[in-house]
Amino acid sequence: MTDPTTTAAPAISPELQEAIDGVRADVAALHAELTRYGLVVWTGGNVSGRVPGADLFVIKPSGVDYDDLAPENMILCTLDGTVVEGSPGSDRSPSSDTAAHAYVYRNMPDVGGVVHTHSPYAVAWAARGEAIPCVITAMADEFGGEIPVGPFAVIGDDSIGRGIVETLRGHRSRAVLMKNHGPFTIGKDARDAVKAAVMTEDVARTVHLSRQLGEPVPIDPNAVDSLFNRYQNVYGQDPTGSLN
Amino acid sequence: MTDPTTTAAPAISPELQEAIDGVRADVAALHAELTRYGLVVWTGGNVSGRVPGADLFVIKPSGVDYDDLAPENMILCTLDGTVVEGSPGSDRSPSSDTAAHAYVYRNMPDVGGVVHTHSPYAVAWAARGEAIPCVITAMADEFGGEIPVGPFAVIGDDSIGRGIVETLRGHRSRAVLMKNHGPFTIGKDARDAVKAAVMTEDVARTVHLSRQLGEPVPIDPNAVDSLFNRYQNVYGQDPTGSLN
Amino acid sequence: MTDPTTTAAPAISPELQEAIDGVRADVAALHAELTRYGLVVWTGGNVSGRVPGADLFVIKPSGVDYDDLAPENMILCTLDGTVVEGSPGSDRSPSSDTAAHAYVYRNMPDVGGVVHTHSPYAVAWAARGEAIPCVITAMADEFGGEIPVGPFAVIGDDSIGRGIVETLRGHRSRAVLMKNHGPFTIGKDARDAVKAAVMTEDVARTVHLSRQLGEPVPIDPNAVDSLFNRYQNVYGQDPTGSLN
Amino acid sequence: MTDPTTTAAPAISPELQEAIDGVRADVAALHAELTRYGLVVWTGGNVSGRVPGADLFVIKPSGVDYDDLAPENMILCTLDGTVVEGSPGSDRSPSSDTAAHAYVYRNMPDVGGVVHTHSPYAVAWAARGEAIPCVITAMADEFGGEIPVGPFAVIGDDSIGRGIVETLRGHRSRAVLMKNHGPFTIGKDARDAVKAAVMTEDVARTVHLSRQLGEPVPIDPNAVDSLFNRYQNVYGQDPTGSLN
Repeated sequence: MTDPTTTAAPAISPELQEAIDGVRADVAALHAELTRYGLVVWTGGNVSGRVPGADLFVIKPSGVDYDDLAPENMILCTLDGTVVEGSPGSDRSPSSDTAAHAYVYRNMPDVGGVVHTHSPYAVAWAARGEAIPCVITAMADEFGGEIPVGPFAVIGDDSIGRGIVETLRGHRSRAVLMKNHGPFTIGKDARDAVKAAVMTEDVARTVHLSRQLGEPVPIDPNAVDSLFNRYQNVYGQDPTGSLN
Repeated sequence: MTDPTTTAAPAISPELQEAIDGVRADVAALHAELTRYGLVVWTGGNVSGRVPGADLFVIKPSGVDYDDLAPENMILCTLDGTVVEGSPGSDRSPSSDTAAHAYVYRNMPDVGGVVHTHSPYAVAWAARGEAIPCVITAMADEFGGEIPVGPFAVIGDDSIGRGIVETLRGHRSRAVLMKNHGPFTIGKDARDAVKAAVMTEDVARTVHLSRQLGEPVPIDPNAVDSLFNRYQNVYGQDPTGSLN
Repeated sequence: MTDPTTTAAPAISPELQEAIDGVRADVAALHAELTRYGLVVWTGGNVSGRVPGADLFVIKPSGVDYDDLAPENMILCTLDGTVVEGSPGSDRSPSSDTAAHAYVYRNMPDVGGVVHTHSPYAVAWAARGEAIPCVITAMADEFGGEIPVGPFAVIGDDSIGRGIVETLRGHRSRAVLMKNHGPFTIGKDARDAVKAAVMTEDVARTVHLSRQLGEPVPIDPNAVDSLFNRYQNVYGQDPTGSLN
Repeated sequence: MTDPTTTAAPAISPELQEAIDGVRADVAALHAELTRYGLVVWTGGNVSGRVPGADLFVIKPSGVDYDDLAPENMILCTLDGTVVEGSPGSDRSPSSDTAAHAYVYRNMPDVGGVVHTHSPYAVAWAARGEAIPCVITAMADEFGGEIPVGPFAVIGDDSIGRGIVETLRGHRSRAVLMKNHGPFTIGKDARDAVKAAVMTEDVARTVHLSRQLGEPVPIDPNAVDSLFNRYQNVYGQDPTGSLN
């Protein structure tokens, strides 16, 4: 009899194994960016990455110290959120947010990475159920407008995943503030989703600070459009366009 | 004649010695988490851990640099708060909060660890004598509701210890904000109490930030119950239930 | 055919090569100060330095990790903002703010260094379009008065560079807060501009904090003058006077 | 002809040389605490220490990187604030705050260490000209009441030193907030003055945070007295009483 929360390992070609190993290494290493930027404390927060060319993703184990994360203890899951039996790390429980990540991968085929944190400024907006208005050019560049709020949803079924997808589908923002909970971000791969998580906290903080002493000046919507389009197509060494 | 603040060393079996050495190592190492998360400055703050199977606990010495803490200079005390004569480190004074830790261990037999800090956001709430309301899911998970305020109490007798125990006994929260003073946290062992101290400052900060720009939305009490129960029984690799 | 965004390499004397190499080393190393002081996240922010005795400057590549910056991947540009063909790093795109840096070098011949960041407190003032008032002596020393606001300008032509130059020309301040965007700072060399960026965030934060709980006391303009003049001529091991 | 800002070196006994070397090492090393706790940026801030048994003190050079501070480039001064000719480091200028330190040593014979920083929360109170009220027990322990404000004074003569001495003489607090400028702290030696600087910023921040969301509860003056007396006589491994 198989454990209902694991899935028998599929036959794995050498190419697929290489892809899995690459995502394991990326996902393990990217967690260091969450601590570097103060987005997480203790064992909170999680990064996952889709395995290119397969219905699989890799995610952090639950409740493990950031100092102890390594490629071999990342956990390989199928898109229904169950652990692939016998794969490295499959003796441990995956992140308690695994169902939400899986829901996003099933329903947003272009998403290659998902990140969740309780970063303080972003959660402060989420606890008021308030979207972050677009009043700085860095936010227009990165998110193309406001960062929206998603519904209050309790862990345990698909309601968090559904809230993320319903809020972000068709939206320029790669970040959603789940009400009373915290930010989830998506990206074309795990690194891109981590970047979105870092930028979410950065703009959450800056706009918070600005509003503490008065009202920030809104940016003209045409300028927001222009900044977003330029940034998605020109910035960096290898611009590949927006995720959405 | 014996010093009234020390206690003659009891006969120590090899098993007990091993248990003591384990707690010394844990307590010394866990102080690094207080500096990592910015919960303490200079020589402030202290962690203690109960020795399993004995009426003993291990605590930090008073006024010693965090860089100089090591297992052998942690101090072994009996549950009345006196130093065990002749044990390593017994030539130094224990933390000036030792009496409060001892009172908690005497009166809360399930408590295996106690932590005290002056972490800034938690003390900010304590100085106003204001409990931290439960408006974020991380707080429902970890504390099962608000973090309560304990009475104003001056160091020197049992009044701090009594204030901690009277506030936390029967309460879901593992943290209390002693008025005008700061947080004390408890746990099933020293590591669990340190986690509670880290999470106390994290939620104290996030709720503070949220309230700076408006009123956070309360979480429905049924949802708080559900989150608390799940987290105590499901999260992590080896969930062992709530302390209380 | 040459790429319109690069310029054929001029003949380079050994002396000029040494000067270029020195600026490459300085500019690469100075980026570490931006991360040390929390002025940037991810790949944001940029430092440039003019090559003494030549119509050239060196700037950071676009979208490259701070951990990967090194002298050989800094990018050499002419004062019209095009990359010098065939020079080390010329296979990469320069910072997306290169045109603004180039405009400043063309129009302010005494400027030897330019820095741009999105440091949070400075951007918070910029998003309100509000100058930072001079209410602390450190600000009088360093900036000789308020830090002014420049116009809203969208990236893509000379409007950012023009806004910087029009605001700072003839002003004591080496920093301008571009509206809804963030600070640009100038200096006699790259290090001096980085110092100005560090001090801009420091005073932006301190004056922000002060105003949160009331009105800071203004400093008498005569005292501001006296502090500015002393600091420019006396402070440090080798005072060389103000840039402006 | 001698430079009016240096003093011919006195005859130095081996014992005095050893004392000077000890203070050089302490003062150089203690600067690392200023950066560890975020009290300074760039080359700002300074620590000095009196040489026991001599009318001499050791202070940081002006405008030198924190990474480059070492015992041999600390500067030996007489109590009138002039550099001792020919001593190591005497080819550099001492801190621009040397005259203020010297004034304190001349007029407060029990003071063995002086520290000055522009730490942000303390300067925020200073810029409003507002004393920090004693609403947390850590402040009662360390300062015995409020941290007072000193007069506005411009660098260049004895007015800063005089403002420090007039404010702190007979006061329990070892810290003064010079108006629009920042904190100066004193101690029985350089380390004690650094501790006071660290605690000043810590309480400046915590009381600031507390007041942001309401009014902190005052502590009864009798309790303040009791906490201050206990802390000065009991805390730590070797309590030696209050400085004042």
